[in-house]
Amino acid sequence: MNSRKKQVEAELPRCIENLHAPEALKESMLYSLNAGGKRLRPILVLACLKAFGKDEALGLPAACAVEMIHTYSLIHDDLPCMDDDDLRRGKPTNHKVFGEAMAVLAGDGLLTHSFQAILSQNSITAEQKLLLIEELVNASGAEGMAGGQAADMEGEGKDLTLSELEYIHIHKTGKLLTYSLVAGAILAEASEDAIDSMREFGQHIGLAFQIRDDILDIEGNQEKIGKPVGSDTANGKTTYPSLLTAEGAKDKLVSHIEAAKAKLQEMQLSHSFLYDLTDLIALRES
Amino acid sequence: MNSRKKQVEAELPRCIENLHAPEALKESMLYSLNAGGKRLRPILVLACLKAFGKDEALGLPAACAVEMIHTYSLIHDDLPCMDDDDLRRGKPTNHKVFGEAMAVLAGDGLLTHSFQAILSQNSITAEQKLLLIEELVNASGAEGMAGGQAADMEGEGKDLTLSELEYIHIHKTGKLLTYSLVAGAILAEASEDAIDSMREFGQHIGLAFQIRDDILDIEGNQEKIGKPVGSDTANGKTTYPSLLTAEGAKDKLVSHIEAAKAKLQEMQLSHSFLYDLTDLIALRES
Repeated sequence: MNSRKKQVEAELPRCIENLHAPEALKESMLYSLNAGGKRLRPILVLACLKAFGKDEALGLPAACAVEMIHTYSLIHDDLPCMDDDDLRRGKPTNHKVFGEAMAVLAGDGLLTHSFQAILSQNSITAEQKLLLIEELVNASGAEGMAGGQAADMEGEGKDLTLSELEYIHIHKTGKLLTYSLVAGAILAEASEDAIDSMREFGQHIGLAFQIRDDILDIEGNQEKIGKPVGSDTANGKTTYPSLLTAEGAKDKLVSHIEAAKAKLQEMQLSHSFLYDLTDLIALRES
Repeated sequence: MNSRKKQVEAELPRCIENLHAPEALKESMLYSLNAGGKRLRPILVLACLKAFGKDEALGLPAACAVEMIHTYSLIHDDLPCMDDDDLRRGKPTNHKVFGEAMAVLAGDGLLTHSFQAILSQNSITAEQKLLLIEELVNASGAEGMAGGQAADMEGEGKDLTLSELEYIHIHKTGKLLTYSLVAGAILAEASEDAIDSMREFGQHIGLAFQIRDDILDIEGNQEKIGKPVGSDTANGKTTYPSLLTAEGAKDKLVSHIEAAKAKLQEMQLSHSFLYDLTDLIALRES
């Protein structure tokens, strides 16, 4: 896990450093890209390639692309007009350091150049590149992450049903997590069936990830998660525990983890690092 | 000109309408996409194909892509943290109608789905698609439009030199205008030399476009240009007339128009609609 994280963190700045662009913009893009985090999405790309017996290094460009999309979404989500957050992973948010206008542009730039990361990979076919780009558009655009964020905003202050809550999470976080696995499978030249199975696996761990997030908000350790515990309750947000009770949410978490593991078994990948990752997501403390 | 505009305006909404996405987000994206404007960038794609003797319809997807990028940039530029504009083409700006958070997302969504427009074109090769996408990334990202916008912000309130001013304009508006022509040439399967010549032609009309903009700000008709005349001067902005005098700016405009026409002559395209467009840009009243 840690060696993959280091590999990705060594590669990420290279996507920006060599750009011929105003220094202030590059600095703002790099600030958020280098701000740490779990690097879960890039690690999933590499772990998926490993599970299929391929060279993990093949996944670095797509790993950078998905992390750039994730980073842009954090910068825009933190803006005063969105979640208005001053801190992210214990550091001042992008707009606090560079101003709101530059933060908007840094997000736009990271979004745009995520596609460049895929385009510059020489070791794959044109068809693979196009597939990777199309999946990334779908995962991050109006039918994916941006759509989930819009639905989340629309639902603010309303009591959501379980299916409305799931719509938000499948789109806001699930699709991009799933992209990582689908990208790994595409790069591994997996069959269409295997790509579909990986997509289903991704949906289960995506929801498990979010349910764990909701549980941590009521039971987590503030220092470990890096934000105040109980903020969802204080903000009147609909969460899995608020709809299902804490016990019900934990049962749902377990059922998604089991379904995810069953998918891996079906693909005969239950001895892979993806299996361990599934547990890590279910049990994470931050 | 008008028939091409209509063709593009019929096609544009189709890029959004069929998306499986929250209605509020689609509405916000469509609002700005359907808000009119000269549609200069899409028209340049079609006119370039025509100049090379190709079917203009081949250019519709790239035409939509470039207009989606242009539209996203207007939405983000109008935000309170950027130019804080309430009106655009006589209509309330996106954030005035849908709120700032949705406007940020609508911009993000249009940027992301611009690539989808290119991906969904079936009549071109994978290599052409990748080239169109790579050129669009370069024209719109940190090395292009977003970089120009960042440089513009950095230069605010400062006295710029002519070369600093040109850097801003070449990147902020020039690169995307040039993209339209390069995209047309790629779709027309023009030679690399022809693509390069088209790029140079684009740089000249891009600068001519901007100089004309600056001249209109001091001499234009407020009703025709749709914004108060003299706002650059009032805001202390460095412009071509402020650096070169109005006469000097007009001379520079003429020199770019002549260089653009010379490029067309070199390509033996001086009888094409691109030639008329060059004059239209130089003489436009709005």
